[in-house]
Amino acid sequence: MKAVLESFFEFLRIPSISADPARADSMNDCAEWLRAHFVSMGLAAAVHPMPGPPVVVARSAGSAAKKTVLIYGHYDVQPVDPLTLWRNDPFEPVVENGLILARGATDNKGQTFAHLAGTEAWLRERGELPVNLIYLLEGEEEIGSPNLGAFLAAHRDELKCDAVMISDTSMVGPGFPAITCGLRGIACLEITVRGPKMDLHSGMFGGVIANPAQELANLLAQLHAPDGSVAIPGFYDDVLPVAENERAAWRDLPYGERELLAAAGAPALAGEAGYGPLERIWIRPTAEINGLTSGYQGAGSKTIVPGFASAKLSFRLVPGQEPERIGELVREFFESRAPRSVTVEVSYDHGGNPCYLNPHTEFGRAAQAALAEVFGRPPALVREGLSIPIVNLFQRVLGRDALLIGLGMPDCRSHAPNESFPVEQLEKGIAFHQAFLARL
Amino acid sequence: MKAVLESFFEFLRIPSISADPARADSMNDCAEWLRAHFVSMGLAAAVHPMPGPPVVVARSAGSAAKKTVLIYGHYDVQPVDPLTLWRNDPFEPVVENGLILARGATDNKGQTFAHLAGTEAWLRERGELPVNLIYLLEGEEEIGSPNLGAFLAAHRDELKCDAVMISDTSMVGPGFPAITCGLRGIACLEITVRGPKMDLHSGMFGGVIANPAQELANLLAQLHAPDGSVAIPGFYDDVLPVAENERAAWRDLPYGERELLAAAGAPALAGEAGYGPLERIWIRPTAEINGLTSGYQGAGSKTIVPGFASAKLSFRLVPGQEPERIGELVREFFESRAPRSVTVEVSYDHGGNPCYLNPHTEFGRAAQAALAEVFGRPPALVREGLSIPIVNLFQRVLGRDALLIGLGMPDCRSHAPNESFPVEQLEKGIAFHQAFLARL
Repeated sequence: MKAVLESFFEFLRIPSISADPARADSMNDCAEWLRAHFVSMGLAAAVHPMPGPPVVVARSAGSAAKKTVLIYGHYDVQPVDPLTLWRNDPFEPVVENGLILARGATDNKGQTFAHLAGTEAWLRERGELPVNLIYLLEGEEEIGSPNLGAFLAAHRDELKCDAVMISDTSMVGPGFPAITCGLRGIACLEITVRGPKMDLHSGMFGGVIANPAQELANLLAQLHAPDGSVAIPGFYDDVLPVAENERAAWRDLPYGERELLAAAGAPALAGEAGYGPLERIWIRPTAEINGLTSGYQGAGSKTIVPGFASAKLSFRLVPGQEPERIGELVREFFESRAPRSVTVEVSYDHGGNPCYLNPHTEFGRAAQAALAEVFGRPPALVREGLSIPIVNLFQRVLGRDALLIGLGMPDCRSHAPNESFPVEQLEKGIAFHQAFLARL
Repeated sequence: MKAVLESFFEFLRIPSISADPARADSMNDCAEWLRAHFVSMGLAAAVHPMPGPPVVVARSAGSAAKKTVLIYGHYDVQPVDPLTLWRNDPFEPVVENGLILARGATDNKGQTFAHLAGTEAWLRERGELPVNLIYLLEGEEEIGSPNLGAFLAAHRDELKCDAVMISDTSMVGPGFPAITCGLRGIACLEITVRGPKMDLHSGMFGGVIANPAQELANLLAQLHAPDGSVAIPGFYDDVLPVAENERAAWRDLPYGERELLAAAGAPALAGEAGYGPLERIWIRPTAEINGLTSGYQGAGSKTIVPGFASAKLSFRLVPGQEPERIGELVREFFESRAPRSVTVEVSYDHGGNPCYLNPHTEFGRAAQAALAEVFGRPPALVREGLSIPIVNLFQRVLGRDALLIGLGMPDCRSHAPNESFPVEQLEKGIAFHQAFLARL
């Protein structure tokens, strides 16, 4: 383990902050370090130049007789500001109470390195791998993976695989593994209500000219039914049902109202009747107002009837729903409810598909069994309320669902000062990787 | 009339733009020109230094046996931008098709000068005035009269009077005079809805944490009943009734839906059922949203649950209603309707009292008769939907209701390029002033 940690610390010491243009050399250094490390492990590896930081691809000696698993990770990390809140230099890892403290310790160098070290141990201790392994490590995840889609498309044949594994999510808690089996999609729109041709004096026109801010509020207030559900006709029509046993399992998870309230700092939870807190986030679509703009917004008062009012809207979607279809329903909903004293314009900005990631495939079953073996309990099959765009990329370009095996801890402080990864978690990650291979 | 126009044009040529600090000398020049003009008419006059442009006070030879009428006007004018849209130099008056074109031609040099010339003619032609006249001409009306209240208070005894006359409003149309008998008041508030302690990721929290922008919209949508009335309990309790014959007279005015729509550029009128367009503006209180702010307001999308949402609100009030009482009702209304998943804060910014200005006093009856004599028809007894803060000042400090005799034309383009005042209107204003005096 000493050699593993030494090697891991070398990886952590490279300040590969993709958001910082001054770190371009570090990005190249990190990619080259990975390439050399893969070669030392016995894999073929190449650094692929990109418009931004390079992509590193490594592959085991291939065999057409074996299935292929692609492991995705990212070697770029978040910026470290504010530096004063760190207990150590974020690029000089230390171990404190069993925790490795460093930027990237969990996200995503730690989780990625657990796989690398697992492969290395397998090759050293057992020789040939039971599957072909492809590692695809990018350096732009923290800045939105702007070039990954093009890279996947250009290397589609070379990256052909039977499964994609990503370890960039979280466990439920210490010793409680999880596989993320679903992500919500999204549809983003904007609604603009226009009334008079300009802001009007509210004394001269107030009472006789419709107020666009009032009409916008009236329309937005119709978005939800009294039970908290979205009141747009047809909104739920395509929602796929979720198995009762899947929902039942979530009720025992040690995460819910208390933890959500603490994280949000809100006075009380809210949401759709008939669903628990996690269900509302994981498997129920929502309508959210992301922003409001109208009239005067400075200090004091300005007594006008505003010329227009607008709202940014986003709809979190669940498997079965299609972003553009939802956008259409939203447009019809608002346009049909607009009074004739104003005009209403609904524009579609962008969308992302929701996804269900079946954890019961051959590879999913192997991962579940491996997690159960290493952690002593079977993984929770959870969901996430957000989108992970790279998952959509792998589905769209490579035609493969990702297997999201989170090795991070919920309190790992990723993106924040004093990011950490337990040494024990690194060891268990290495063990999981080998247990997974052993089951294939 | 030639001498009158020459003198009026001298007054118009002084570029007394109160908003422009570079015109400070012109403000003093204009005040001094007025003082000298009053003296030449036979009145005692003084220029009172102020923190800004001076106040000019002139008075006729006083007699304790006579009643006193104070005539208020303002010698400052609006800026002239955009200059390119003017057909002439705004400070070099010309007469075109019977219209005097110049900045201030109507607002307020023209209307003020009609009174001055009327007094001058009376003194020259008939000698002693039937009342004591005080002229109070300020130079800060266009910038909100920031110092007039203090001036009135400091000169309360000297300005003691039986009536205040102001000519700074409009006639109904050519040959159709008007007296403005009521102004709406106002109460300005802000409502802020707070939810989570910061903007939250809508994927991680959307569906379980109340969205402050949604809750604000829900609250604002309750402001009005389906019939367009304000739904706040008690809102109309103190509204004083308006005589049916007063309302009936307004139905024949040549101003309504068509003119309002043209001015506002809105698709259709809106407002409270059971009241005509002018009634909705003149005698009905309203609730207006003047501005909305929440979350992300830039280009594209940002998928957040905003930490807060706020709205600027103003309520136009009618005689009987008290701004602070209305503010209290608004606060109770929103606070009692707030769900416990957010906090709601309603803050009162400022208010102004509505006023009814009785046109049937001794002076009002004289003004009505004088207008009828000069224009050949009795004046419409109208209202305005806005506040005129100086009217409140005269009520509060001097205890006198103003008599608002509008000599401006509705199409006078005050505050805009090519402001005009018909020569005929100047002549009729002079005649009105004398006819009014003759009736006292």
